[in-house]
Amino acid sequence: MSANKKARTQPPYELLYWPGIPGRGEFIRLAFEAAGVSYKDVCNESEDGMKIIGTLTDQSSTGSDGNPPVFAPPALRVPGEGKNGAALVLYQTPSILSYLGDKLGLSGADEAEKSWILSHTLTALDLNNEAHDTHHPVSVGLYYEDQKEESLKKATDFRENRIPKFLKYFERVLKGNEAQGQGKFLVGDSLSYADPTVWHVLSGLEFAFPKEMEARKKDYPLLFGTFYDSVKETKGIKEYLASERRKEFSMGIFRHYPELDRQ
Amino acid sequence: MSANKKARTQPPYELLYWPGIPGRGEFIRLAFEAAGVSYKDVCNESEDGMKIIGTLTDQSSTGSDGNPPVFAPPALRVPGEGKNGAALVLYQTPSILSYLGDKLGLSGADEAEKSWILSHTLTALDLNNEAHDTHHPVSVGLYYEDQKEESLKKATDFRENRIPKFLKYFERVLKGNEAQGQGKFLVGDSLSYADPTVWHVLSGLEFAFPKEMEARKKDYPLLFGTFYDSVKETKGIKEYLASERRKEFSMGIFRHYPELDRQ
Repeated sequence: MSANKKARTQPPYELLYWPGIPGRGEFIRLAFEAAGVSYKDVCNESEDGMKIIGTLTDQSSTGSDGNPPVFAPPALRVPGEGKNGAALVLYQTPSILSYLGDKLGLSGADEAEKSWILSHTLTALDLNNEAHDTHHPVSVGLYYEDQKEESLKKATDFRENRIPKFLKYFERVLKGNEAQGQGKFLVGDSLSYADPTVWHVLSGLEFAFPKEMEARKKDYPLLFGTFYDSVKETKGIKEYLASERRKEFSMGIFRHYPELDRQ
Repeated sequence: MSANKKARTQPPYELLYWPGIPGRGEFIRLAFEAAGVSYKDVCNESEDGMKIIGTLTDQSSTGSDGNPPVFAPPALRVPGEGKNGAALVLYQTPSILSYLGDKLGLSGADEAEKSWILSHTLTALDLNNEAHDTHHPVSVGLYYEDQKEESLKKATDFRENRIPKFLKYFERVLKGNEAQGQGKFLVGDSLSYADPTVWHVLSGLEFAFPKEMEARKKDYPLLFGTFYDSVKETKGIKEYLASERRKEFSMGIFRHYPELDRQ
């Protein structure tokens, strides 16, 4: 199916996520951009972004139109695809990506590849969560400054033990798939939603821990010598990254506190 | 399809997970038990359980037979279902459950339900991870005793803010689905793999934080008045829980340290 034809047959997808930051919404944006399928980034395109998220995550909601309530953003709204012709509302990043993977042609060539793509995505999102926890190891409800002492300990462990464990894992995945993926794809011989997901986490780590990453990159030649730039140059993703739609890292999941980086 | 017929047409599933504890393998065991489909709990049925896990998670492996390497247990091995007739190897709990959901008839009546089942499962597994982090807030590589001070802070936040947020969410899900699920099912009108997953996390919380849970249960009448016992009494699950196959909570994800519970 050509990209044009695919675009024409897609419903009007709506991404619901906090405005102004990449956050967990970014994994979904990257999937749409890589597939060349249009979507509405609702809260970034509206003045009422924060209000929309407030309604979406209303703690007294039991859901609507046959949809369950949303635990936390991101959510995906797909008009016409829910129960009895209502809008479908999905939440949880991996679940949204799994749903979209099939529609966008980003979920591999067969059932095995489809499962591995989800597995690698989950692993990258675990790394994403652990990166977040370096500046919020005690409570998401407290400021960083109120858990700085614990953050220093957590970040040290993250940099010394967790980052290399995850990077080595993805290097091994690329190596095991090298005959097909040429270091450019984690699964099979074409782009899946796992590729931009892993890429975005790597780019976040480079923002948050520039010294640590600079010191380690050379140990993972496929990951940083081939994969990283290949994903960045992918048609659709390249144009997106150069656009204003790509939000800069700031005070979201990935934060650059120099004291948490390698000294 | 009758349970017997379903059982006859299933491949010889093999669960690969640490022996002796429920852990993350338990979510997969419960799915098999609820479906009445046989599986081999490899490491619990072998003297070499620890060795098998060691080989599975070998940090130099790039995978085999077309499968990627496994980041961490649990893994599912399905002889004959991989590339070129080899065994398929999957990792990451939600990915394994998503794969099995279809095969075991535990993934809902349509695509929307299938997505919500995965979403709720992911949310329950997030709660599972947060429960783990109460005794390992700084590093998974250190003993609890070496991060006890931080654990006391983390557990306080978990009990006061996170537990009620998650419990209230699942109560709202049950309420929103009450017309169909009667408080017994999170999605639709029959058991899905999300139900035993949420149930197991609740049972783990009751083990780890008995005072906290006792004080809070009354606030969630569907979750603890209907859902909890209903899942426990489900055919297949009931027999499993009474068997020796169900391992007791001990020093795994859920641990009972009285000092971390409500005082």
